[in-house]
Amino acid sequence: MAAPRVVRTRAELRTFLAGADRPIGLVPTMGALHDGHVSLIRRARAESATVLVTIFVNPRQFNDAADFEKYPRDEAADLHLAGLAGADVVWIPSVEEVYPAGFQSTVRVGALTEGLEGAARPGHFEGVTTVVAILLGLAGAERAYFGQKDAQQLLVVRRMAADLGIGTEIVACPIVREPDGLAMSSRNVRLTPEARAAAPVLRRALLAARARYEAGERDGAALRAAMREVLSTEPLAEREYVSCADSETLNELARFDGPALLSMAVRFGTVRLIDNEPLP
Amino acid sequence: MAAPRVVRTRAELRTFLAGADRPIGLVPTMGALHDGHVSLIRRARAESATVLVTIFVNPRQFNDAADFEKYPRDEAADLHLAGLAGADVVWIPSVEEVYPAGFQSTVRVGALTEGLEGAARPGHFEGVTTVVAILLGLAGAERAYFGQKDAQQLLVVRRMAADLGIGTEIVACPIVREPDGLAMSSRNVRLTPEARAAAPVLRRALLAARARYEAGERDGAALRAAMREVLSTEPLAEREYVSCADSETLNELARFDGPALLSMAVRFGTVRLIDNEPLP
Repeated sequence: MAAPRVVRTRAELRTFLAGADRPIGLVPTMGALHDGHVSLIRRARAESATVLVTIFVNPRQFNDAADFEKYPRDEAADLHLAGLAGADVVWIPSVEEVYPAGFQSTVRVGALTEGLEGAARPGHFEGVTTVVAILLGLAGAERAYFGQKDAQQLLVVRRMAADLGIGTEIVACPIVREPDGLAMSSRNVRLTPEARAAAPVLRRALLAARARYEAGERDGAALRAAMREVLSTEPLAEREYVSCADSETLNELARFDGPALLSMAVRFGTVRLIDNEPLP
Repeated sequence: MAAPRVVRTRAELRTFLAGADRPIGLVPTMGALHDGHVSLIRRARAESATVLVTIFVNPRQFNDAADFEKYPRDEAADLHLAGLAGADVVWIPSVEEVYPAGFQSTVRVGALTEGLEGAARPGHFEGVTTVVAILLGLAGAERAYFGQKDAQQLLVVRRMAADLGIGTEIVACPIVREPDGLAMSSRNVRLTPEARAAAPVLRRALLAARARYEAGERDGAALRAAMREVLSTEPLAEREYVSCADSETLNELARFDGPALLSMAVRFGTVRLIDNEPLP
């Protein structure tokens, strides 16, 4: 497996892609690659002639400066993993390269960004949609791969791409989990050993609600209560929200009969984890 | 000269363009085509294998509902002119096709949109940048052609395209004028005969300031005063603003030595006209 080509400027990226075989598959990441990212890159590899991975810890999508500073970074390890998974080229831009002097454009998605992560993290989605618009613009890829773990982000990016006539297909990839059920996340390494041991409570809470759903429960409030009940058994888990929402609009559901998305955000000290489960 | 192909949906446009020869030249218009538009289409024809003209009176960029209602529309005449000028395909979408059900995305450019037209027409540029992002996204053109008459719009669209990594070159085309100096505008047909006779005062005011500049004047306030002085000789002209601004940032200039943009907006009854002159 050859090491992937590394490019750092917008111009280098454009030059590389101008001569690249099509179709191009784009995997946008913030680095600190784990098996979740690897699954995205492998999927891109299987469907693309050229696989582009981007690594950029985007300051605009961090509502919390400390979270940005503490976000794990390891370029050498990332390049190794990206190469093993099949990346042809990795774009690792500086902040100034993504947002050059005079930069002043913003892409915003409306109602879909108002609840859940949008409510908990002011400005987060505007940062995400702006940087993803830039990545999609620069890459001009046939497909871009996003993880289902960030379920709201996936819906928001899909909406943006459809609204703005962006010709890149947004491909959703399943959550990859640790053996004990914890969803893979770059933030997991920041958990204390005690918090790490407690963190699978998110998955247990989701599965408890799923079990209620499979037993016939169709009341959103009852499913939210089921998740809260499980989370409350874990003293280290500080619940931020639990949600049982329409899977297209993300509006909270009362009684429902269509597809739904169970989701939650939980803090363990300074580390904030999210997880979700689509129904059915 | 064959009549251009007319397409109305996003899907029809994509299908047509998927098989179109490259490069593609895009000319976005709101219809009511005049010789200014014709010059854009001819330029696109000279530089492109496929020329796409779009005709869409975009409600989101009208801050004034009456202006939107009264905006002139004549599809048959527009198709005839577009075909004569060299258009291969004309996209004439409905509002619902440009902004489909659930549409909720916005593209905004910052400081460049705050003064001049942006200050006079709240929400105007957000409407412009959002629809132009959609047009650039759908067209995937190598080049898009804009008139210098809307000088601020040109700078804003260029900024947006550069910021968001949009691979379409934004080409500026010179203002086309009537024999008496009035800049071509779709709104000119709405002028009363008296106002039409008075309207070249915009051009005279710009030329008076240019003459002062060429005589060595480098004080922004003096050039703005020169323009105001000429405009005040015309009783039908209600001045909205005059500007002598930095030609990149559009910040108003005091003493200056670099390039500048003279511009103005003037009302004749309910008809609002703009014009500009780059220095040197």
